[in-house]
Amino acid sequence: MNIVHQSIQRADSQVIEKLGQAGVATVHEAMGRRGLMASNMRPIQQDFGIAGSAVTISAPPGDNWMIHVAIEQLQQGDIMVLAPTAPCDMGYFGDLLATSAMARGCRAIVIDAGVRDTRDLRAMGFGVWSTAISAQGTVKATLGSVNVPIVCAGASVNAGDVIVADDDGVCVVPVDQADSVLQAAEYRMEAEVAKRERLAAGELGMDIYNFREPLAAKGLKYE
Amino acid sequence: MNIVHQSIQRADSQVIEKLGQAGVATVHEAMGRRGLMASNMRPIQQDFGIAGSAVTISAPPGDNWMIHVAIEQLQQGDIMVLAPTAPCDMGYFGDLLATSAMARGCRAIVIDAGVRDTRDLRAMGFGVWSTAISAQGTVKATLGSVNVPIVCAGASVNAGDVIVADDDGVCVVPVDQADSVLQAAEYRMEAEVAKRERLAAGELGMDIYNFREPLAAKGLKYE
Amino acid sequence: MNIVHQSIQRADSQVIEKLGQAGVATVHEAMGRRGLMASNMRPIQQDFGIAGSAVTISAPPGDNWMIHVAIEQLQQGDIMVLAPTAPCDMGYFGDLLATSAMARGCRAIVIDAGVRDTRDLRAMGFGVWSTAISAQGTVKATLGSVNVPIVCAGASVNAGDVIVADDDGVCVVPVDQADSVLQAAEYRMEAEVAKRERLAAGELGMDIYNFREPLAAKGLKYE
Amino acid sequence: MNIVHQSIQRADSQVIEKLGQAGVATVHEAMGRRGLMASNMRPIQQDFGIAGSAVTISAPPGDNWMIHVAIEQLQQGDIMVLAPTAPCDMGYFGDLLATSAMARGCRAIVIDAGVRDTRDLRAMGFGVWSTAISAQGTVKATLGSVNVPIVCAGASVNAGDVIVADDDGVCVVPVDQADSVLQAAEYRMEAEVAKRERLAAGELGMDIYNFREPLAAKGLKYE
Amino acid sequence: MNIVHQSIQRADSQVIEKLGQAGVATVHEAMGRRGLMASNMRPIQQDFGIAGSAVTISAPPGDNWMIHVAIEQLQQGDIMVLAPTAPCDMGYFGDLLATSAMARGCRAIVIDAGVRDTRDLRAMGFGVWSTAISAQGTVKATLGSVNVPIVCAGASVNAGDVIVADDDGVCVVPVDQADSVLQAAEYRMEAEVAKRERLAAGELGMDIYNFREPLAAKGLKYE
Amino acid sequence: MNIVHQSIQRADSQVIEKLGQAGVATVHEAMGRRGLMASNMRPIQQDFGIAGSAVTISAPPGDNWMIHVAIEQLQQGDIMVLAPTAPCDMGYFGDLLATSAMARGCRAIVIDAGVRDTRDLRAMGFGVWSTAISAQGTVKATLGSVNVPIVCAGASVNAGDVIVADDDGVCVVPVDQADSVLQAAEYRMEAEVAKRERLAAGELGMDIYNFREPLAAKGLKYE
Repeated sequence: MNIVHQSIQRADSQVIEKLGQAGVATVHEAMGRRGLMASNMRPIQQDFGIAGSAVTISAPPGDNWMIHVAIEQLQQGDIMVLAPTAPCDMGYFGDLLATSAMARGCRAIVIDAGVRDTRDLRAMGFGVWSTAISAQGTVKATLGSVNVPIVCAGASVNAGDVIVADDDGVCVVPVDQADSVLQAAEYRMEAEVAKRERLAAGELGMDIYNFREPLAAKGLKYE
Repeated sequence: MNIVHQSIQRADSQVIEKLGQAGVATVHEAMGRRGLMASNMRPIQQDFGIAGSAVTISAPPGDNWMIHVAIEQLQQGDIMVLAPTAPCDMGYFGDLLATSAMARGCRAIVIDAGVRDTRDLRAMGFGVWSTAISAQGTVKATLGSVNVPIVCAGASVNAGDVIVADDDGVCVVPVDQADSVLQAAEYRMEAEVAKRERLAAGELGMDIYNFREPLAAKGLKYE
Repeated sequence: MNIVHQSIQRADSQVIEKLGQAGVATVHEAMGRRGLMASNMRPIQQDFGIAGSAVTISAPPGDNWMIHVAIEQLQQGDIMVLAPTAPCDMGYFGDLLATSAMARGCRAIVIDAGVRDTRDLRAMGFGVWSTAISAQGTVKATLGSVNVPIVCAGASVNAGDVIVADDDGVCVVPVDQADSVLQAAEYRMEAEVAKRERLAAGELGMDIYNFREPLAAKGLKYE
Repeated sequence: MNIVHQSIQRADSQVIEKLGQAGVATVHEAMGRRGLMASNMRPIQQDFGIAGSAVTISAPPGDNWMIHVAIEQLQQGDIMVLAPTAPCDMGYFGDLLATSAMARGCRAIVIDAGVRDTRDLRAMGFGVWSTAISAQGTVKATLGSVNVPIVCAGASVNAGDVIVADDDGVCVVPVDQADSVLQAAEYRMEAEVAKRERLAAGELGMDIYNFREPLAAKGLKYE
Repeated sequence: MNIVHQSIQRADSQVIEKLGQAGVATVHEAMGRRGLMASNMRPIQQDFGIAGSAVTISAPPGDNWMIHVAIEQLQQGDIMVLAPTAPCDMGYFGDLLATSAMARGCRAIVIDAGVRDTRDLRAMGFGVWSTAISAQGTVKATLGSVNVPIVCAGASVNAGDVIVADDDGVCVVPVDQADSVLQAAEYRMEAEVAKRERLAAGELGMDIYNFREPLAAKGLKYE
Repeated sequence: MNIVHQSIQRADSQVIEKLGQAGVATVHEAMGRRGLMASNMRPIQQDFGIAGSAVTISAPPGDNWMIHVAIEQLQQGDIMVLAPTAPCDMGYFGDLLATSAMARGCRAIVIDAGVRDTRDLRAMGFGVWSTAISAQGTVKATLGSVNVPIVCAGASVNAGDVIVADDDGVCVVPVDQADSVLQAAEYRMEAEVAKRERLAAGELGMDIYNFREPLAAKGLKYE
């Protein structure tokens, strides 16, 4: 029942990087508004975005043993994604584990629980999205699993999925949709350039999107 | 039932600016401790204050159509104030809408819901106070109203009310009280200058405010 | 029943300073993982740590009278720790009280309630950990106590206990354990130097801590 | 600034009673989906509904002095509606105050704070909707106001408004809309009788409301 | 993108019934402690348990159109499971929809959002587990999907999965594990009979489970 | 560091019983409004009150091993009080443990975490106050302590303290204050009898407590 899947499928690294540049809001729209984690999943740093391949961790509450197991599975560009099996705000992760993860090329963690050593983590440039900050220590007593499907902050994550994270939160792109989502995201970004220029010039969304007629049809009154 | 009030009364722009300089804590005291929004209404930027005239928006949960309608109603110095008709943390507002609002002279939004593109919004210098940050997209399907009375984060807001917002939160000054509240705020700030000097010099509030007698009268014991 | 204890035992100032340098996560571990406040006790500033002797305040909800009483009891290096007698998010503390506290050598407050004037407080370099930010004003009508035992954000605090606070939260060290906890913290920090080097060099925690055997014994499977 | 309005306009008692029989969900719909308090306003009893005229109370956090003031203003069929000026979960109201209120014909309280003696209150048949249950005692030290406009659990309430409360929560009907809302509610209830029969007989909402065409038009696919 | 899957695999009705009799706590243990919804998913009735096949509904916040679509897909013994695409506490479901669902043999709903008409729903004997109670009305404007995989209150649910719900919450059994989970549950219940007798007779878990030795080995001291 | 204190001082059983009859609200007042647990500590049953001697349990999150250890320490009339060392909503306690505890004369548990088998627990007449209901299973892997001082739901509890619990929540009476608190509670209850009669007869608290003069002195205006 407690398993470590060692071989996972990852998306193309260039696709991943471009998804990271597109950012969470754009990728979430490009995916048809799916895959977003809950809004209490917040970064500990500001003005920072990243994307990477998910190494998933299912861990008991208050037990970070499986992070050590997961670190051995990390490859260049991976992001750890941890969901406890029950709500927990303890500090599963700090600067020592981050040091170890960075040595293997991992650049960030997304965790539906707490982290600690947050000042050091920011100084190290290791990206952290968490639902709590807490110094509370964890134990190493009970097994979990690595690279199994998890639900993290309300979103389904499979090992290898592309994790896109920035100031707006975290979005999960299934590995087999990475290419098509990137295409849709790039299309969307191009369309937004023109819209942004028109809006900056003072043109109204009311006119650009032809909202006046449907609003009137639904009965909106002006006084 | 769904209405856009196009003509609203605004306070004098100089009064508004001075209320903004006074800041939320002072204005709230000057108003007799009324008009404050709940403490989960937080800024997405730091060390930033502003004041402006409220253009209010009542919108269905997950539907930002009325923001487009409201933007057409904006004048120089306005602040949009949005309350959903039921609790909602979705991302109603992002950089494109901010671009459009800024083109009309709007400088900030106060929203009892979520926003997205927060990094861009900070870079643009557009002030945001919200109860959530979320990339979750909204639809444009159901009507709301603009410039009607709303309850936003526990505070009553009427169109044209002066919104004062800074790192401490958001306070609402009824338009017909703007002058008197400013007067009270300025009086209070002057009084605080002297108090601050005395306190900085080591004098105790216990002595400045003559607390020793009433404390003893109520039975406070020293050991 | 309402008392001000004027004479409290404080730890040695050098021990306090070193505990502050060790930081919350390390001190919490060195204490056997006790004494941590709840994770909703958050700093209003970033990348800032401190330690000091607790002057405790038990105050009624929405009433900050006892802060004035407590300020008179402050000595160089003290930290005020306030717990309301019922949950309250109002703004008990702002820049005037901070001015007064700093005049007496106090360097920070830890408060299971709200603060205001947060921008000023950051500018003054006065450390603040709170469970809310709110401009909502308090009254001076009902007694509380100073330097009595309190429960603040889930942690027991006695007057004179060493408060260690940084970006990770707040930890409470009983005054009579300050020396032994510092010793344990320093031992721990030394041990971490070597570990950090090995991990940075790519060695795995799996090997450093000999986890492979116990993991297998508990039944972890690799696929 | 602290006022007791002694003369308030109440709706017709028969209209009030019928609104109570219609219940919260129906009245809320009949009002155009406005006036509902937040969903954390919950009854302490089950299977119980009521309606009455609001006697509003604005009280400081942790101070129930104004309830005594309000009780003197109560008339037969009134419901007290209390909003603290800042969030508070203390026990403002218990069996003694309920005894006093019942002696004046008041039948219920709606309070955005805590109550106590809940077992007794249920036994007395006094209706209670609150956002907390807590034995925590309050003081009588600071003024508030009676029969002023308040915001209670997110809803605007004016003295004399009809309060409708049942297992689904609490809805506020402005006194000058009581008649028209009742009319709309009765129309709605009549329409529901026929719909309920058709649905009970197995007919589908898909057919009764002709949803198939608009669903297909929007692109819903069946597989 | 918006789809209704009309053909779903259901577990054997006798297996489902027996899983319901085993109850949530036992089934959750029998599954290896997986599949449990979050603890804010609470019943509106007491002392009531049920099991059925999931008809899943993914719906926009504040829009219950897809419930009508889902009702057409219901078969005898089904349970509707609804997850909004963003957090929402509005009243998606009431007595009319329950009447329609019961006409098709559906016996309960599990909804990560609000319900209304709760008194009527209890009287009808229709089981409800929800994360809110609210009269707030929803619209019928935007598509969702039926019988797609969803995440409801933190648990993954696929159409046809066995939903077990009682006073302890809600557990999800994947349809292809229903038989094996029932077997494990029955084994567990049998084992508990003997244990319960021994414990009722005063025998200690310390002795039954042989805890003394491992506790001592880990260092537990008695004083 | 992990200890079981086997010998604790308990209050007189008759005193305990009378404190239970007085109830939480009265005892809390009689204690000077101290000792109350937070308002999210709620009973799973209705119209039920009890008092007993605290056997305290400090347990790791998600680990109920120490409950077995504690049960061996139980005597007739004891109440278990469990605080996890970090926030946790898992189901630490169910019908088997309750069976064992009842066999030793324990009548209730107060737990700042979750319980399960709630329907059975109610049927058994075993009193439960908890901060969550959850079927989520716990492990037996890490030590805690029994009969050490704990902070449970914000209240300090020492082994042997009298726990008073009813529909209003839970109050903690230090064992050496049990007699004096009972005396104050009885005095209070007697005084309330007369007050209740006067209030029921229509006399106002305004007159009984002579509030008119102090209210006017503070500036309350009637209109």
